Amino acid sequence: MMPVSKSLINAARGLAPADCVYRGARIFNPFTCLWDDGDLAVTGGRILGIGNYTGKEERDLSGRFIVPGLIDAHVHIESSLLAPKEYARLVALHGTTTVIADPHEIANVAGGRGLGFMLAEREGALVDIRYMLPSCVPATPLDAGGAILDARDLAPFAGREGVAGLGEMLNFPGVLAGDEEVLRKLSLFAIRDGHAPFLSGNDLNAYILAGPDSDHECTNLAEAEEKLKKGMYIYIREGSAEQNIAELIPLVNPVTVSRCCFATDDCHADLLVREGHIDRCIRKAIGCGLAPELAIRMATLSAAERFGLSDRGALTPGRRADFCVIDDPQMFTVQKVFRSGREISPGPPTVPAPLDSRVQCVPPSTEDIRITGSGTARVIGLVPHQILTEPLQYKITGNDIPDLDRDILKVMVCNRYGKNKRGIGLVHGFGFRQGAIACSISHDAHNIVAAGAGDDAICSAIGAVIDAGGAMAAVCGTKKVILALDCAGLMSTLPYDEVARRLGSLSEVTKTMGGIADPFMYLSFLALTVIPALRITDRGVFNAGVFRDVPLFLEDAKYGI
Amino acid sequence: MMPVSKSLINAARGLAPADCVYRGARIFNPFTCLWDDGDLAVTGGRILGIGNYTGKEERDLSGRFIVPGLIDAHVHIESSLLAPKEYARLVALHGTTTVIADPHEIANVAGGRGLGFMLAEREGALVDIRYMLPSCVPATPLDAGGAILDARDLAPFAGREGVAGLGEMLNFPGVLAGDEEVLRKLSLFAIRDGHAPFLSGNDLNAYILAGPDSDHECTNLAEAEEKLKKGMYIYIREGSAEQNIAELIPLVNPVTVSRCCFATDDCHADLLVREGHIDRCIRKAIGCGLAPELAIRMATLSAAERFGLSDRGALTPGRRADFCVIDDPQMFTVQKVFRSGREISPGPPTVPAPLDSRVQCVPPSTEDIRITGSGTARVIGLVPHQILTEPLQYKITGNDIPDLDRDILKVMVCNRYGKNKRGIGLVHGFGFRQGAIACSISHDAHNIVAAGAGDDAICSAIGAVIDAGGAMAAVCGTKKVILALDCAGLMSTLPYDEVARRLGSLSEVTKTMGGIADPFMYLSFLALTVIPALRITDRGVFNAGVFRDVPLFLEDAKYGI
Repeated sequence: MMPVSKSLINAARGLAPADCVYRGARIFNPFTCLWDDGDLAVTGGRILGIGNYTGKEERDLSGRFIVPGLIDAHVHIESSLLAPKEYARLVALHGTTTVIADPHEIANVAGGRGLGFMLAEREGALVDIRYMLPSCVPATPLDAGGAILDARDLAPFAGREGVAGLGEMLNFPGVLAGDEEVLRKLSLFAIRDGHAPFLSGNDLNAYILAGPDSDHECTNLAEAEEKLKKGMYIYIREGSAEQNIAELIPLVNPVTVSRCCFATDDCHADLLVREGHIDRCIRKAIGCGLAPELAIRMATLSAAERFGLSDRGALTPGRRADFCVIDDPQMFTVQKVFRSGREISPGPPTVPAPLDSRVQCVPPSTEDIRITGSGTARVIGLVPHQILTEPLQYKITGNDIPDLDRDILKVMVCNRYGKNKRGIGLVHGFGFRQGAIACSISHDAHNIVAAGAGDDAICSAIGAVIDAGGAMAAVCGTKKVILALDCAGLMSTLPYDEVARRLGSLSEVTKTMGGIADPFMYLSFLALTVIPALRITDRGVFNAGVFRDVPLFLEDAKYGI
Repeated sequence: MMPVSKSLINAARGLAPADCVYRGARIFNPFTCLWDDGDLAVTGGRILGIGNYTGKEERDLSGRFIVPGLIDAHVHIESSLLAPKEYARLVALHGTTTVIADPHEIANVAGGRGLGFMLAEREGALVDIRYMLPSCVPATPLDAGGAILDARDLAPFAGREGVAGLGEMLNFPGVLAGDEEVLRKLSLFAIRDGHAPFLSGNDLNAYILAGPDSDHECTNLAEAEEKLKKGMYIYIREGSAEQNIAELIPLVNPVTVSRCCFATDDCHADLLVREGHIDRCIRKAIGCGLAPELAIRMATLSAAERFGLSDRGALTPGRRADFCVIDDPQMFTVQKVFRSGREISPGPPTVPAPLDSRVQCVPPSTEDIRITGSGTARVIGLVPHQILTEPLQYKITGNDIPDLDRDILKVMVCNRYGKNKRGIGLVHGFGFRQGAIACSISHDAHNIVAAGAGDDAICSAIGAVIDAGGAMAAVCGTKKVILALDCAGLMSTLPYDEVARRLGSLSEVTKTMGGIADPFMYLSFLALTVIPALRITDRGVFNAGVFRDVPLFLEDAKYGI
């Protein structure tokens, strides 16, 4: 609750002039999903109300539309490759005034120190960043990265300013098993985000009963309908890789809209620059046939209510004066953005506080990545626009890899926390004809992951990542482009436009390699053991279906695994 | 948050039998406003989920409908004339499992001791009673009753089990004036109920800005639309006297339903016995054309969400197994009620702990209530079905009162807190031809109020109230019926059926007096100084429009008042 003074009350009554009055616009009302007319009066960064007001300053917005500031219900800021303050500087221009962020990535790399860094970065950011504390560090006991955060470590953060609750509970097997440590974490927070792809029926009931009451992993409508029906908030996700709006938008109607929000989850800086943030989600939803008013409701009041943020999400008396001026509801182009009554102008970029990059890794040689032997090999199959993979099998001979005709390439993970462990596997779907890519973003442990059409190129790309103290690197012939991620090996300390430019350069190189668009996004999820089916870790191939390491060749399998 | 155990998770997964499974019913889903099919499984008083379950006990509810337990968003239990536990015993049978109660009346009589009594009564009650702490004790500085509760007195109750927030802020003039003590009270609680009849425009903006974000005083649709639009939850009220459903129900649609609830505010025991509680509101709303699903949503999830009660309002995994079995949605007859998984059976009534009646008053004689003089008198005009009054003026001579032809009767308030103050006024609208009624319920100070067609009868009725230590009394010729309200002069310690029977007897006597139905309800509001227009207090006639005492005869007015 924000304090209320007599002078603020007088201003709301119209007995004293408001700081600023915005006239002539139609103002979105998320309680009715209709548009109100009147003067919007603001004093001290707060809405006085819509009515008849005079202001010390008055601005004419005739013909425009005003909507409350947009809210991202779930995002991993690290995925933008930007530090939080720079991320805020970018998304604020797109109308976003609040993001609910889960610093899951940096926590897996740098634990409590990483959380401290993210909390420090929210100070003075152009957007209000609220953190859901990462619930699964490491993502699984098998996937220890740079840190372990148990309930004892999280407890001191509960109730701290800027902390909103517990982040997505990826460990649904742990929940279903009634794991005590998992239940302890859930008991620390009142607001708990879920993550339960494809979970259904009685097991979904059990997961919800244990506490998580949101989900942003729905990829089909029936799944979303079941989860909403069972009391989950549904965050409809539209990220760089995962794009679910087209499939899920029929879920939203006047009754269900209060339980639906938008989330970007993982979005690279270049996409944010090019297409926008939550404004992009709104445009996409409208393009899929949703009434603009319902889309805006999702992005404002519904998200605010979900997180108990009663001070925002609507432009009613006493709430924060967070709002955007748009051209018209159907086009939804954000023209101006106001936070706490002040028009946002991005100003110069700031350089984040230094954070150890945590890249301790000996560069591999071509010798180190040789595959010997032959037989029926497990091959990780990329699925277009999904982070799921398909479990493929091919008869291969190690020496014949890369097999460009059948698009079977090597993929490698190198432990970056000084353990000198490496795992090698095979991947289908990149389609590279030459070169290699590597990066220090590799969910969730964030070891170094690389894939490519040649052993030399793979080694060179990995070496570049290590030399830069974390990076995305693309190597193709003599061309080598590097985007240093010197902030924990996850985020850049560069301004967003420069990051977007480098991503463009990386993309140009990967285009010359042939193959799919956005290969880094696929690469960075290849080690994510919580998503089916086959994965690669610093121990080698991993079967997420049975949740254990498996040999590359089926012939080496024991007990049928 | 309720704790979750591994065994509960196993039960939800279906790995162990549920305590009880309810089969064959259609189950209301407030998230979709549709009906779900499946087995409803309950263990340990909590919903496991809807799915495929087996139970230690299984009950066939084929052809029936299940809805979540009903919630009253705002009620003064004292108005039922029943102590809280007995009230719960009555409304539980009607499907109510949670009431949000404002013990405003008893607090005005007995202060913190009264609150302690009400909190003690919730223990073991059949319904979960949550209290909103009375914000206006006394209702106005002019209306001191038996206690004063300032912010310092309320603070220790904040966060206490059973306390939900701050009750209706009647003192809207104080809010608009920025009164510091009022703002201090508002700052103590996150959930703050409003009370702002007819407040509109910029002043309504200021009131909402100060904190209260609900209203149950709307009497016309435009008023409710403005308040909802400005961010208030609208509790649509259907009490004994105030009945707003017919007028307000067009407010409710699939978008707004999440912001609308039902409230009974003030309901006598006999009405509750005869017509029901929130089930009555639902039937009335359906009768006014609202879809049953929207009416049920209002009475369940919408109310639960408004009060942050995430453990109820829907029958989804982990929530309390509070639900009702009904015949069909359109008729909405409650057949069985379950709270925390147990079928409610009322059992024997309990006698509340004794509480000082606080009736210290010298009975007046006919001499004490003589009106001398003549001239143009202010006469309080009753308005049918409203607690508002009309400011009437009649030329009278004191000795000619009662004037049965013009229906001008005496009305009197006697201070009951030992101050020996008495005020006399005139009232139009009761229509009594003989006899008198008196009672120790007289909002908000709860002095003794009486009106009648004869001075002897008025004195006799007041004497009966004093003798009983608080009561409702009707005297007509030789007939005298008394319902003792020995619990603070507000509530009876009798079982609800006996209270309803006595109310019937009182009603029989008042019928023989001629005049309007339900005269006690009008009588008990005649001293309520916060509602326009004319009122009577222990100081005499009061003009609520200018908020001050005024002389009975216009000729005695000074400064035009």
